[in-house]
Amino acid sequence: MASRVAVIGAGPGGLAQLHAFAEAGKNGAELPELVCFEKQSDWGGMWNYTWRTGVDEAGDPVHASMYRHLWSNGPKECLEFADYTFDEHFGKPIPSYPPREVLYDYLLGRARKNDIRKYIQFGTAVRWVSHNAEKNTFNVTVEDLKTGDHRTEEFDYVIVSTGHFSVPNMPDFPGFEQFPGRILHSHDFRDSREFAGQDLLIIGSSYSAEDLALQVKKYGANSVTISYRTAPMGFAWPEGITEVPLLTRLDGNTAHFADGSSRRVDTILLCTGYRHHFPFLENSLRLRTKNVLYPDNLYKGVFWVDNPNLMYLAMQDLYYTFTLFDAQAWYARDYVLGRVNLPSADQMREEIASWRAREEALSSMMEAVEFQADHLRDLLQNLDYPKFDVDMTVEHFRTWLGHKQEDITGYRNRGGFASPVTGTVSPALHTSWWEMLDDSPEAFLGESAGSAK
Amino acid sequence: MASRVAVIGAGPGGLAQLHAFAEAGKNGAELPELVCFEKQSDWGGMWNYTWRTGVDEAGDPVHASMYRHLWSNGPKECLEFADYTFDEHFGKPIPSYPPREVLYDYLLGRARKNDIRKYIQFGTAVRWVSHNAEKNTFNVTVEDLKTGDHRTEEFDYVIVSTGHFSVPNMPDFPGFEQFPGRILHSHDFRDSREFAGQDLLIIGSSYSAEDLALQVKKYGANSVTISYRTAPMGFAWPEGITEVPLLTRLDGNTAHFADGSSRRVDTILLCTGYRHHFPFLENSLRLRTKNVLYPDNLYKGVFWVDNPNLMYLAMQDLYYTFTLFDAQAWYARDYVLGRVNLPSADQMREEIASWRAREEALSSMMEAVEFQADHLRDLLQNLDYPKFDVDMTVEHFRTWLGHKQEDITGYRNRGGFASPVTGTVSPALHTSWWEMLDDSPEAFLGESAGSAK
Ligand SMILES: Cc1cc2nc3c(=O)[nH]c(=O)nc-3n(C[C@H](O)[C@H](O)[C@H](O)COP(=O)(O)OP(=O)(O)OC[C@H]3O[C@@H](n4cnc5c(N)ncnc54)[C@H](O)[C@@H]3O)c2cc1C
Ligand SMILES: Cc1cc2nc3c(=O)[nH]c(=O)nc-3n(C[C@H](O)[C@H](O)[C@H](O)COP(=O)(O)OP(=O)(O)OC[C@H]3O[C@@H](n4cnc5c(N)ncnc54)[C@H](O)[C@@H]3O)c2cc1C
Repeated sequence: MASRVAVIGAGPGGLAQLHAFAEAGKNGAELPELVCFEKQSDWGGMWNYTWRTGVDEAGDPVHASMYRHLWSNGPKECLEFADYTFDEHFGKPIPSYPPREVLYDYLLGRARKNDIRKYIQFGTAVRWVSHNAEKNTFNVTVEDLKTGDHRTEEFDYVIVSTGHFSVPNMPDFPGFEQFPGRILHSHDFRDSREFAGQDLLIIGSSYSAEDLALQVKKYGANSVTISYRTAPMGFAWPEGITEVPLLTRLDGNTAHFADGSSRRVDTILLCTGYRHHFPFLENSLRLRTKNVLYPDNLYKGVFWVDNPNLMYLAMQDLYYTFTLFDAQAWYARDYVLGRVNLPSADQMREEIASWRAREEALSSMMEAVEFQADHLRDLLQNLDYPKFDVDMTVEHFRTWLGHKQEDITGYRNRGGFASPVTGTVSPALHTSWWEMLDDSPEAFLGESAGSAK
Repeated sequence: MASRVAVIGAGPGGLAQLHAFAEAGKNGAELPELVCFEKQSDWGGMWNYTWRTGVDEAGDPVHASMYRHLWSNGPKECLEFADYTFDEHFGKPIPSYPPREVLYDYLLGRARKNDIRKYIQFGTAVRWVSHNAEKNTFNVTVEDLKTGDHRTEEFDYVIVSTGHFSVPNMPDFPGFEQFPGRILHSHDFRDSREFAGQDLLIIGSSYSAEDLALQVKKYGANSVTISYRTAPMGFAWPEGITEVPLLTRLDGNTAHFADGSSRRVDTILLCTGYRHHFPFLENSLRLRTKNVLYPDNLYKGVFWVDNPNLMYLAMQDLYYTFTLFDAQAWYARDYVLGRVNLPSADQMREEIASWRAREEALSSMMEAVEFQADHLRDLLQNLDYPKFDVDMTVEHFRTWLGHKQEDITGYRNRGGFASPVTGTVSPALHTSWWEMLDDSPEAFLGESAGSAK
């Protein structure tokens, strides 16, 4: 088979894609030529932690937004690989909210099983993708970051899996220009201990705001004030964390809020989200979307309607992650291998429109979870992906939301989540998360000398 | 005249270029079509201060590396515009080491005099420049940062003035990955007060290291340890600033140095310099150089030898700045207007090689200054640029270096520098720089209510 497939990015999405092809190959399929371009020097995407902020060794914006003390903020059962279970990887049941390094290890465990690393060209950034209408191929210009040299290659398919949690939304507020402290976006947040003893102002009310407020308080911040635009998150925050309405202005170190209150702060942390950003795609190929569950112009959440030989992975607002990426990657693979046919552009548009309309009408987080579960089911029903009990994970999400409402500093201690693949039930965390400052894999897995069992 | 000139960047370099053309226009020259692309929303380049770090509103790496409390680190007389003097701008003699805002105001003062803003397309990033060999033209692809739309335009000349103090060198050291504090490059340094009370480790021994050590100490850092690779700067540092050999590793918060000493630090500040970085230029057009006084392949420091219709401004390691940019811009203009002819490529290469050889042999800072003064003289002798007394400024640099050796916290207090254009002698600073925390223009110019005269 002469066709060539470019996969852009070797994060969980791109790795799922390479894995999906490798699995088909093992089962006898003839594979196209696969080339994965990854600008970092290693795989794992967002999960590949770095101390760096700003730009990287190559002068490119740093990709990673993860921070040292990140723990899964949802039960791991909801992201399990159906063909590579937690049981298989860890050899024993483990708690439901692993810290970053543990999940990273799991992610790479599967990546190492098949020989997919050979497809990846590391230190290679995609700079420009254009479409050749005559041949219906794509010209992909890449830069070798070690030499700065460029080259352009031709591909029949392009699969974009560059993530959408890397390029921050950076709002401005009156008084930022004169604020005598540090202002940073959550993208540049690395170590909670940098803020010990400080009074922080966090702007935003999504996951990052929620989790970073807890993280900095856990590691010794003096106080955290969270400023929301529309509504407070309303958790039963521990002492020292409070929510206030929108920031109106800063006057030196003093932050003023819409309710007339004010507070002295040392540092401002913008948890104002990320942008879908594809500076390397020509206009006609470029997805433009907010962070939604069903972006427009993507059939099955994957195929670029105007030209389905261009595919996108993991571009949704995410409740489901690894499992969803698998389902999308399996679908993309089957299209490339000619195993599925896509309907006409008009039919695709119609189907997307109906998902979009349904998304517009969602009114709660649980409805959003159910929506994404349906998206996942819609993909899985057409695939040879191993059995994954979606219904069970919807209930896990419901339980998780309940636990968070009950106890925002304690929900990560809870066990009792069954695997949607093996049925194995997770144990509780051996120590209170709120008190567990050492989040090394050894400490988490209860293998370190000092840890309580 | 049908020819089209693209100027990339509206910093001091690009503005000098537009100004040079405008001056010729006022004197009757027929001008080419000028288009200046600037990715920021305003002019002034590096001098356009921002609180932002990391990436900007558009998801592009933030250009600015300047910090709030930056003051000129050399006497302003050495960068005076010969056709727009400090006397003309300020209406009175002012001290020799102005803070950032004052120099910015001077820079923009001249920019506003001629109607050059009309040439600048703001919010427009150059993404790709390629050469069309058949027509000897350049295809310049730009992105409108508000819409994300791209377009490609054709130019006869391209003048690159995008600066080379924006893209940091980011070295790694053993233990960075686990360091429980903040690690930042001087590029991301904004406000000295962020570090009050802290023990800082600064890595590097160039201007940034020197100046930031003083700045953070001035604004309340507890201690500053400067780690050098080859030799200490050796100034008579104020109490609390010390120099040590190279960092070997970090162990938690403890930094270990090559002499076996160690120290607990809160924050690590990398003053490890910048890279010439032109991701938007195709290989054959791309200057590749270290930060030197006479980069290879640039005739007169300006013309790309392989194709002089491509020019670079301000790509040197800089002692002279604004005046040097003017001389380069005048030269570039005269070439575009057909007023000067360039020798053969071989002759150009020969001339460059002799400068390069001379640079290789330099052994002191004062020799470097004299070298760059010769470069400046070499340009000026062929230009209609107004009289600028280069000899005088060489002596100013000598005096400046002496003052720094005598008193590193006090050299900015000194006056007595004559203008190389008007002869006006600068007054001393009215207050000790080391004690002057308010560096607003009003405070500096002695116009604020509370300031001593
Ligand atoms: C703070 C934070 C916390 C999170 N927590 C969780 C969590 O607990 N659980 C969870 O499941 N998910 C979490 N996520 C979501 C996470 O983004 C996904 O798990 C996953 O990383 C998405 O995979 P991806 O492959 O789509 O993108 P990424 O992981 O972002 O990988 C994209 C890859 O593309 C590469 N790339 C980008 N541009 C180019 C280019 N031009 N050329 C070449 N390569 C390029 C990047 O270097 C990167 O390796 C979190 C995200 C953030 C930001
Ligand atoms: C910390 C620091 C302190 C300094 N202190 C002094 C000092 O005291 N005195 C002094 O004389 N000099 C100082 N300098 C040197 C300073 O860089 C020069 O004065 C001057 O700013 C160089 O001008 P430039 O136009 O070459 O580059 P810049 O000022 O860097 O301007 C380049 C412009 O190009 C734009 N640009 C970049 N890429 C693109 C693109 N792809 N598309 C469109 N636009 C683009 C940028 O947005 C920017 O506006 C200092 C530099 C630094 C970093």
